[in-house]
Amino acid sequence: MSIEETASKIKNMEIRGAGKIARCAVMALKEYALSIDAESTELYLKALREGCNELKNTRPTAISLSNALSYVMRRATGESIEEIRANLVKAVDDFVEASIAAIEQIATMGSHRIVDGDVILTHCNSTAAIRTIIKAHEEGKQISVYATETRPRYQGRITARTLAENGIPVTLIVDSAVRFFMQKVDIVIIGADTVASNGVVINKIGTSLVALAANEARVPVLVCAEGYKFSRETAMGRIVEIEERDPSEIVDVAEFEGLDVKIKNPVFDQTPPRYIDSIVTEMGVISPFAAYDIIKKFEER
Amino acid sequence: MSIEETASKIKNMEIRGAGKIARCAVMALKEYALSIDAESTELYLKALREGCNELKNTRPTAISLSNALSYVMRRATGESIEEIRANLVKAVDDFVEASIAAIEQIATMGSHRIVDGDVILTHCNSTAAIRTIIKAHEEGKQISVYATETRPRYQGRITARTLAENGIPVTLIVDSAVRFFMQKVDIVIIGADTVASNGVVINKIGTSLVALAANEARVPVLVCAEGYKFSRETAMGRIVEIEERDPSEIVDVAEFEGLDVKIKNPVFDQTPPRYIDSIVTEMGVISPFAAYDIIKKFEER
Amino acid sequence: MSIEETASKIKNMEIRGAGKIARCAVMALKEYALSIDAESTELYLKALREGCNELKNTRPTAISLSNALSYVMRRATGESIEEIRANLVKAVDDFVEASIAAIEQIATMGSHRIVDGDVILTHCNSTAAIRTIIKAHEEGKQISVYATETRPRYQGRITARTLAENGIPVTLIVDSAVRFFMQKVDIVIIGADTVASNGVVINKIGTSLVALAANEARVPVLVCAEGYKFSRETAMGRIVEIEERDPSEIVDVAEFEGLDVKIKNPVFDQTPPRYIDSIVTEMGVISPFAAYDIIKKFEER
Amino acid sequence: MSIEETASKIKNMEIRGAGKIARCAVMALKEYALSIDAESTELYLKALREGCNELKNTRPTAISLSNALSYVMRRATGESIEEIRANLVKAVDDFVEASIAAIEQIATMGSHRIVDGDVILTHCNSTAAIRTIIKAHEEGKQISVYATETRPRYQGRITARTLAENGIPVTLIVDSAVRFFMQKVDIVIIGADTVASNGVVINKIGTSLVALAANEARVPVLVCAEGYKFSRETAMGRIVEIEERDPSEIVDVAEFEGLDVKIKNPVFDQTPPRYIDSIVTEMGVISPFAAYDIIKKFEER
Amino acid sequence: MSIEETASKIKNMEIRGAGKIARCAVMALKEYALSIDAESTELYLKALREGCNELKNTRPTAISLSNALSYVMRRATGESIEEIRANLVKAVDDFVEASIAAIEQIATMGSHRIVDGDVILTHCNSTAAIRTIIKAHEEGKQISVYATETRPRYQGRITARTLAENGIPVTLIVDSAVRFFMQKVDIVIIGADTVASNGVVINKIGTSLVALAANEARVPVLVCAEGYKFSRETAMGRIVEIEERDPSEIVDVAEFEGLDVKIKNPVFDQTPPRYIDSIVTEMGVISPFAAYDIIKKFEER
Amino acid sequence: MSIEETASKIKNMEIRGAGKIARCAVMALKEYALSIDAESTELYLKALREGCNELKNTRPTAISLSNALSYVMRRATGESIEEIRANLVKAVDDFVEASIAAIEQIATMGSHRIVDGDVILTHCNSTAAIRTIIKAHEEGKQISVYATETRPRYQGRITARTLAENGIPVTLIVDSAVRFFMQKVDIVIIGADTVASNGVVINKIGTSLVALAANEARVPVLVCAEGYKFSRETAMGRIVEIEERDPSEIVDVAEFEGLDVKIKNPVFDQTPPRYIDSIVTEMGVISPFAAYDIIKKFEER
Repeated sequence: MSIEETASKIKNMEIRGAGKIARCAVMALKEYALSIDAESTELYLKALREGCNELKNTRPTAISLSNALSYVMRRATGESIEEIRANLVKAVDDFVEASIAAIEQIATMGSHRIVDGDVILTHCNSTAAIRTIIKAHEEGKQISVYATETRPRYQGRITARTLAENGIPVTLIVDSAVRFFMQKVDIVIIGADTVASNGVVINKIGTSLVALAANEARVPVLVCAEGYKFSRETAMGRIVEIEERDPSEIVDVAEFEGLDVKIKNPVFDQTPPRYIDSIVTEMGVISPFAAYDIIKKFEER
Repeated sequence: MSIEETASKIKNMEIRGAGKIARCAVMALKEYALSIDAESTELYLKALREGCNELKNTRPTAISLSNALSYVMRRATGESIEEIRANLVKAVDDFVEASIAAIEQIATMGSHRIVDGDVILTHCNSTAAIRTIIKAHEEGKQISVYATETRPRYQGRITARTLAENGIPVTLIVDSAVRFFMQKVDIVIIGADTVASNGVVINKIGTSLVALAANEARVPVLVCAEGYKFSRETAMGRIVEIEERDPSEIVDVAEFEGLDVKIKNPVFDQTPPRYIDSIVTEMGVISPFAAYDIIKKFEER
Repeated sequence: MSIEETASKIKNMEIRGAGKIARCAVMALKEYALSIDAESTELYLKALREGCNELKNTRPTAISLSNALSYVMRRATGESIEEIRANLVKAVDDFVEASIAAIEQIATMGSHRIVDGDVILTHCNSTAAIRTIIKAHEEGKQISVYATETRPRYQGRITARTLAENGIPVTLIVDSAVRFFMQKVDIVIIGADTVASNGVVINKIGTSLVALAANEARVPVLVCAEGYKFSRETAMGRIVEIEERDPSEIVDVAEFEGLDVKIKNPVFDQTPPRYIDSIVTEMGVISPFAAYDIIKKFEER
Repeated sequence: MSIEETASKIKNMEIRGAGKIARCAVMALKEYALSIDAESTELYLKALREGCNELKNTRPTAISLSNALSYVMRRATGESIEEIRANLVKAVDDFVEASIAAIEQIATMGSHRIVDGDVILTHCNSTAAIRTIIKAHEEGKQISVYATETRPRYQGRITARTLAENGIPVTLIVDSAVRFFMQKVDIVIIGADTVASNGVVINKIGTSLVALAANEARVPVLVCAEGYKFSRETAMGRIVEIEERDPSEIVDVAEFEGLDVKIKNPVFDQTPPRYIDSIVTEMGVISPFAAYDIIKKFEER
Repeated sequence: MSIEETASKIKNMEIRGAGKIARCAVMALKEYALSIDAESTELYLKALREGCNELKNTRPTAISLSNALSYVMRRATGESIEEIRANLVKAVDDFVEASIAAIEQIATMGSHRIVDGDVILTHCNSTAAIRTIIKAHEEGKQISVYATETRPRYQGRITARTLAENGIPVTLIVDSAVRFFMQKVDIVIIGADTVASNGVVINKIGTSLVALAANEARVPVLVCAEGYKFSRETAMGRIVEIEERDPSEIVDVAEFEGLDVKIKNPVFDQTPPRYIDSIVTEMGVISPFAAYDIIKKFEER
Repeated sequence: MSIEETASKIKNMEIRGAGKIARCAVMALKEYALSIDAESTELYLKALREGCNELKNTRPTAISLSNALSYVMRRATGESIEEIRANLVKAVDDFVEASIAAIEQIATMGSHRIVDGDVILTHCNSTAAIRTIIKAHEEGKQISVYATETRPRYQGRITARTLAENGIPVTLIVDSAVRFFMQKVDIVIIGADTVASNGVVINKIGTSLVALAANEARVPVLVCAEGYKFSRETAMGRIVEIEERDPSEIVDVAEFEGLDVKIKNPVFDQTPPRYIDSIVTEMGVISPFAAYDIIKKFEER
């Protein structure tokens, strides 16, 4: 898929989810790197950087996208265009492979936390969280899942379909019913868009409400998050900027024409670490308060 | 409007809101009482009771509906059909008048709690809460309102329209964004479907999440509730049964055909009294923990 | 049973439980009233008062015992010994009947709060709580119960036996396992020794820990308490004195001879009202914060 | 003391404390009523009302002041000036007597809650709270007190002096040290300026911080409040307006001349009822959540 | 002591406590290693592994036991049986020495946290916690201790005896009295069976209730835990399985024959890290949220 | 400035604040090192150590002072007096430079956390916190600040002046008004005297109350703390001893002569890590629960 096509699909959310966006973006960059030529290595790198920026700008606040592209570009070095190209291709393949392997590692570790008979609640549509749940099912555990519909884009319906197709009974509910059903829930399993150095988890709007309601009912919250979602920038004090998407995702704005009605559509919210039991990463299961540790480990790589 | 028509509109939620349902139901009963005749007072009363039951069965768990019809039927007494009819008509008119006056009294008292510059958050579409907010605006206070869209039936859009048409700036948000915006909110103002004898407030699904998030941020929650919403039955131990409406309100169920996906659609949830600052009734502003007092007062009437 | 025998059995806890103590005490007083004679009404009353005091002193801090005897003695009036005797007998019979009826009324109301499939936890051996649970079972609800053993005197074993004999599956656990099992529990149902005017519930040692753990897990706590357990004295500022029983109930004290080891054996503890969902009394289901209301109602009787 | 003198002393806080202000104001009105004459009862009453307003305006937000004057003026009726005067004098004497008796009744009840060995913390300089503490000391209990200095006017120094002069050991601390010492404290005993219908206690700035820190450490908070401090207006939705006093009480404002430094000096803050164990009134010891009860009782008088 | 004898004593809890079990087990393995011979190093190692497994299976969920045996077996290498034997003997001696030294290091650090006049509460019978308390006493601090009896096996009585024999005044209480006495307590000091990577402390049943009640009263909880109690497996997602022991430890099961009464006897429960102030290890005093750090440090050894 | 003069100014708080004290102390030591001579390196070092101790004893519980002097003395090595002197001078210069640079690094990172329109609350007079706030202002953000007066020595007035002189609007309030104004506050920014290994922050008396009130209102608390404020001793179990200063700072003690009034004047209190969002150090932004990490990093230097 070309950079343009990929960029467009990321923008309109045909490609969704921090992990998928990261993988698709580096793969588009790889395709681009294979397709272009240039008069010098400098011009070749310049072209790559431009492609890179186009991809980054689709969702400028997405940490995983930026982390993935930076990882790949740091390794796009060499004496010749061929060498640069080969290194970049290798870096993309490595990233994609590691990224997919991370999900399996997380699922393996996370599924230990699910026991036979558990009722699970999940929000939105996290690949790592869903894979963890399916893994537990594959291990023969009798489980069932509450999936929130996840307004405004209803990604919860996809989650419900995926889990049910894998043989797991699902109950679909509106987002605001989370507290109503929480007392029947044994564990909340969700993904993350970004993890900050103080342990705050940035994820789909509504996640912090789910975690708040879980905490009120002593239900543990498990976050499944690959290592590249931990934000080094937050350790330098940066705030994770919350993307705001188009009002039309929520309502036909024409409906309120002429009236002083604004529509606000933030995509993510911040869940404080005290509402999270553990974060499952490919490097192990940690307390969210140990996020800084994971960030340092990544720096050392 | 006939009983059949009214019953049908209550069922399909063209007539919505505990207060409106109560008023429309007794008015339909009045129309019915005026239109029918019978061979004896006994048969007349039997017919009335049947009409009554038809109305009650539209939403059998609605306390206000049941309270209103009971109030009216208790006064439908007399030696002759004419006398019974006249007493019922009087009772209906009294109820409707008092019910509308109660909203104004609540708005007058509740608006004192709103101060200039306040940012208000409301959920769903409560007549008493909206009237309270508009009253504060009419008193010249500069206020603005966050309105949740209120899935699954989007009554929050009606709230947004009504407030904006009255000159109040509104921001419409998805239900799950409540915690994201709570730190900008000065006061939460909502209605109630039912108030239980231990102070629990039963209201539109999601209300308890709003109150939980408000409590976490030290934002006071004001509930506007007419006296007939306080449930005497709960003082006798009855649980307020939560109505469950059709899954099709949430999603096209055909979408999941053949899959083990259930859709659960509870209409209300329970907010514990410790998350509520005050309940504004036409009889005064009370702590929710004083609900039993209000119930006793009503019994004494 | 004579006063002496009754007093002795209350002291050594053969007669246990606030309600049973109250009923047995007034019945012993009745037997005494029937058996004695005197030269004047004054001397007769004096003898009654002495009998009364003997009974009171068995457990001087027991509110129900004191309330029951006061109720009966207040009505022991008349011109002649015969009249006094007859009035006292009537008062005793009334108290016993009302006291037993109260348990049934509480059970009827309280059982509404138990729903099919509920897992209940109870502590110690409260007649009203047990009757409420059995009532729910009789209504055909499939329920099961966690019963704590209730150190030091293991009254929980009696509870386990009674419930199981009535066909309810029971799991017996040590007191300190309450938090371990709380996440499986739907509702906690317990009795009360005394209810103070600010809503504090005084009950068997460990009750406040159970309520604390329930509150932490959003599990509602239902207290079953007859009206005569509400303490008017607390409304006058009196602290409910906590009885301390013999160390030998806990351990053979000889085991620590010569060592600086004290054994403390308080019988009751205080549960703050914020950890209690509702108190079920024969007069209705209330918030614990409405305890003062119930006390005033009793005064008005 | 004349109205002018009294008004002036209330304004400059020579006369301080909700109770003292109320008593001094009605006594000034009595003196005024005795000193003036008029051509008609109407003119006499007009003069009284003017005197009344002058007194009210000294601290227009003080509920006790307003309650006391209203109580007295409601009884200033009669056919002749003499009769009005006599009734007013009687009303003033009654109010003053009842107000002083209330303090003793509160002290008697409240002192039951203090046990031998208790370490007490108090804030500001409440007559009822101090009398309660001294009463416990007079009953032979070994107690000691932490007194906050109570910025900006250091009323805590007066408290320290009064208690020490009565033989009670006192430790004086700065207001911000409250949490540092809270773990050594057994009970917090404070007064109230106003009690709202939802149980909120309005008292000297800093009270809510003390109560918050007490609640965090499971230390009970006892509020001593005469019945005339319960605000009927709040039951009608009125907010208790917080008086703001002169910046010069806090700092010499000249120090910041030319700089954008404002000084804010609110006199009171609001303590939520969930941080208060009990309110001791002359009518009994109640949960703060029963405040509405007390207000109704006063209305019935 | 032979493997059989050791295994039997661990099973029947003559040998109790995570540390003692670990030390006795490796010492039994050492004795066994010294006593057996084999035809080849392979057969020798096979025999050792069998002995090892027999020991592990006594309490298959005990992390310390497993950690200790793994540590020793990893070092049981060599070219000849003699070399293997010598290495194993050395490893056992090292482990035992380090394990005992760790307790002294913990006691030295932990005792700093105890100040003169402190009232301590402890649960069960932790060697490290008891040594810490005695150390503080040896340093001349005037302290006293509340010891829970610790059902079902009353290990608290041993604690009481040990402390009293060392000159420390002890008060023995039933487990359910913990909240009753908590307000008199300055610090809770307990041991740990296992520490998980997210900071959860697994310890004797009831520990989490103690910590919950301590947290409610702002009383700090100090956990004394040697480094080998930190579970590496939990960092890989493993749940710490809670051992369930025989019902007969709680009650004579014959008492309930024919009745549907189950007895559940879990040995440990999980205390969330937010209820723990610090964990004292031989490597320093840490927040429980830093458990992952300690696990990594051990891995690096 | 000589050691004597510096020591005297630290004692009487002319030199205040953990950072300033540390820098002034090492600079005084440098001046002393330059001015003295000795017959041998041993005697020279002895003189240095004596100077060092004189400085340390000004505030024996101040971690930063002790850390700074230890850092410098560890590097005061050499074969000759000249070499020692040169090394010490270099160490002092390094420390001072790094210490000042740290403040700028903290301000740069911390200011990211302040957004346009923020209302900030600060307590006492922390150089790092103030510099962070000014940095945000310099970046063009419209901010305003609530500054507590900070009894007993009113350092908040200096804070107010400094901020206002830098163009930031300030509101000065008494310490006990912190909860009253907290709902208007977006972020609390404070300094630290010491950070313990379990994340507890020791800072000016009242800080823990501010953090408690912030936590109650979901307002994040940012602590600005240079790395040398993290206490290695606490990782070895040491308690951070709280300095107690002269009563005369609070009140003229003569006022209470002859009365049993003690005045307690602790300078610092302990804020638990659960009330702190992040600590900003020159090494990055961390959760307070990661304090142990920072301590280890320093050890590795």
